[in-house]
Amino acid sequence: MDISARAAAMPSSPIRKLAPYADAAKARGIKVYHLNIGQPDIKTPEAGLEALRGITRETLEYSPSQGYVWLREKMAGYYARFGISVSPDEIIVTAGGSEAVLFAFMSCLDPGDEIIVTDPSYANYMAFAISCGAVMKSVRTSIDDGFRLPPVEKFEELITPKTKAILICNPNNPTGYLYTREEMMQIRDIVKKHDLYLLSDEVYREFIYSDAPYISACHLEGIEQNVILIDSVSKRYSECGIRVGALVTRNAAVREAVMKFCQARLSPPLLGQIVAAASFDAPKEYMEEVYREYRARRDFLLEGLNKIPGVYSPVPMGAFYTMVRLPVEDAEDFCRWCLTDFSYEGQTVMMAPGAGFYTDPSEGRNEVRMAYVLERHELAAALDVLARALEAYNRR
Amino acid sequence: MDISARAAAMPSSPIRKLAPYADAAKARGIKVYHLNIGQPDIKTPEAGLEALRGITRETLEYSPSQGYVWLREKMAGYYARFGISVSPDEIIVTAGGSEAVLFAFMSCLDPGDEIIVTDPSYANYMAFAISCGAVMKSVRTSIDDGFRLPPVEKFEELITPKTKAILICNPNNPTGYLYTREEMMQIRDIVKKHDLYLLSDEVYREFIYSDAPYISACHLEGIEQNVILIDSVSKRYSECGIRVGALVTRNAAVREAVMKFCQARLSPPLLGQIVAAASFDAPKEYMEEVYREYRARRDFLLEGLNKIPGVYSPVPMGAFYTMVRLPVEDAEDFCRWCLTDFSYEGQTVMMAPGAGFYTDPSEGRNEVRMAYVLERHELAAALDVLARALEAYNRR
Repeated sequence: MDISARAAAMPSSPIRKLAPYADAAKARGIKVYHLNIGQPDIKTPEAGLEALRGITRETLEYSPSQGYVWLREKMAGYYARFGISVSPDEIIVTAGGSEAVLFAFMSCLDPGDEIIVTDPSYANYMAFAISCGAVMKSVRTSIDDGFRLPPVEKFEELITPKTKAILICNPNNPTGYLYTREEMMQIRDIVKKHDLYLLSDEVYREFIYSDAPYISACHLEGIEQNVILIDSVSKRYSECGIRVGALVTRNAAVREAVMKFCQARLSPPLLGQIVAAASFDAPKEYMEEVYREYRARRDFLLEGLNKIPGVYSPVPMGAFYTMVRLPVEDAEDFCRWCLTDFSYEGQTVMMAPGAGFYTDPSEGRNEVRMAYVLERHELAAALDVLARALEAYNRR
Repeated sequence: MDISARAAAMPSSPIRKLAPYADAAKARGIKVYHLNIGQPDIKTPEAGLEALRGITRETLEYSPSQGYVWLREKMAGYYARFGISVSPDEIIVTAGGSEAVLFAFMSCLDPGDEIIVTDPSYANYMAFAISCGAVMKSVRTSIDDGFRLPPVEKFEELITPKTKAILICNPNNPTGYLYTREEMMQIRDIVKKHDLYLLSDEVYREFIYSDAPYISACHLEGIEQNVILIDSVSKRYSECGIRVGALVTRNAAVREAVMKFCQARLSPPLLGQIVAAASFDAPKEYMEEVYREYRARRDFLLEGLNKIPGVYSPVPMGAFYTMVRLPVEDAEDFCRWCLTDFSYEGQTVMMAPGAGFYTDPSEGRNEVRMAYVLERHELAAALDVLARALEAYNRR
């Protein structure tokens, strides 16, 4: 009676694996600044909270497996504002973006099939690939050149008869990188040439801090049937807990396949759908304010980080994460030590070890991912604690 | 660019596959009695609805991957009332019972591994097995002897070096069968002898209509490390839409494996956990009334069904389903026809074709599954419509 080889091969989440140490630190009365997880502290839109308080249903019943049509209509209207033209029928509501990724993988990838990702990438992609037996091949990007896409040949080199898909995250988690139009056109060409699926996780589209345009995979001409958009309301409306995401594709065969997995799990969360649908009606001032806040936090955090001796992080152009190189050999050990052995004036920091975001965990060992989801005065304190922690750690 | 072989092999849900026809019938103004799905019409406990209205959080944040400890504590207290002694640490909150089954399969079964189920069984088990590449082997039970377990030798015959687990559902969906103590002891002996996992889906434990005791897999001595309990608040509290279930096991290695899948999907639904936790505080009168209502519906439906010429259903001892043999050759064709070609005084019925609940879909072709989740006057109307539909169908 062993656990499955699949489970044994599953990585622990770099975002959550140190949580028990953080809990223990808190139990000792230490204040922990959470830079590890993209859990915004921003308020959920009032419209969403109001819809929640206004629920008068007396039976909290199953919703349709595809999600309520009134939510999918709101989503279609929202996408139209970004020049993405899809009908509600082409949208499938999922339990967060996570389920959208899992179902896309399950529908497109068989055991042994290969999917190309950029490295570092969102850690849970690997978990979903392992769940369905697919193999991740990675195109390495580097902190030294700001995580921009390497030349297109690097993709070509990885393509084999088993390659079924390319997965991108744009703006990128964990790097904050925003793909340029040129890079997106390169990806388009490869996808078209080799007839691959293009899975595009664009949950951070609202958070782009440069003047560069947002180029969605759905904007690319000639690969309409190849594109599967992954989305979520979690970050946009600061409602990660409601578990509402979406899988969007114009490819009817893929939708039909995904729907089988949707039917097997019966339905996405009812209450979340009610909150999400109302959140789309948040006034534009809400998103503007959230945007300004994240941009200010980014500026503040990056300036502070790059002032700490030996610390380096390129300025992210989107999302609310940044990969940071630390003057330590083993960032995971340092992150754990911060929780188990260090505190400064009763405070410490929690970060996500960088290696967990690389397909090959021997890479990125001196990097961490930070999420700037705290208020500036908290970021200031976290930066101060981090600088002192690094000093103390390297003096041990 | 094909969909995966896995997706191609996924069965369409017998419970949901006819939904488009039902939608079309409704669009034509026809009233459809839904006997197809276990979607109770019963009210969610007031305590749960009150907790929902009372939510004052302003950020709907991620919850812990394992689920909130205050919910797991309530669950542990609830299980203790059934003589199941588990600590909150041994409970993992999932997005409905569905996710608990999926994660149990993912954690215990590799591609090619075999799991033994009783046939007919809950249709989505097959979908989850296909999702993880496992092979279902089935021990056939029959409507003719009330779906009781065949002699233990039938299990023994199926066991190979690849057999990793036995999965039971007790009380059973779709048959309503309740395992006897003797049958449970037989299962225990096989599990112990061959060192298998025993996955036990017991979401209907509150709905047992005979005087026979509820024997949980967790009551069985000597296989404590083998048992994985699948649970859900959906049916019990009539809150299927909140997507809160649980996976319970004393086996730490399995919990650790399951937690990796939990971390990959980040967290179970926050709002659902709030409603579920409060629902455990529903007064015992709530469950008593729900119980009486289902029992009365069962008695009413079964009496009515067995009066229709050519129709037969054994009286189910638990859950709120029954498998029904109809005087037709192809029940799926009949079910579809009821939605597309038939109505009586502007009404029709929707049922789940029986074949979809058998591992071999050439079985159970003249059976349907019915859920008695409608009020008696609606069941009366549905029975009348069904009798007339059968007559008209066989007269065509």
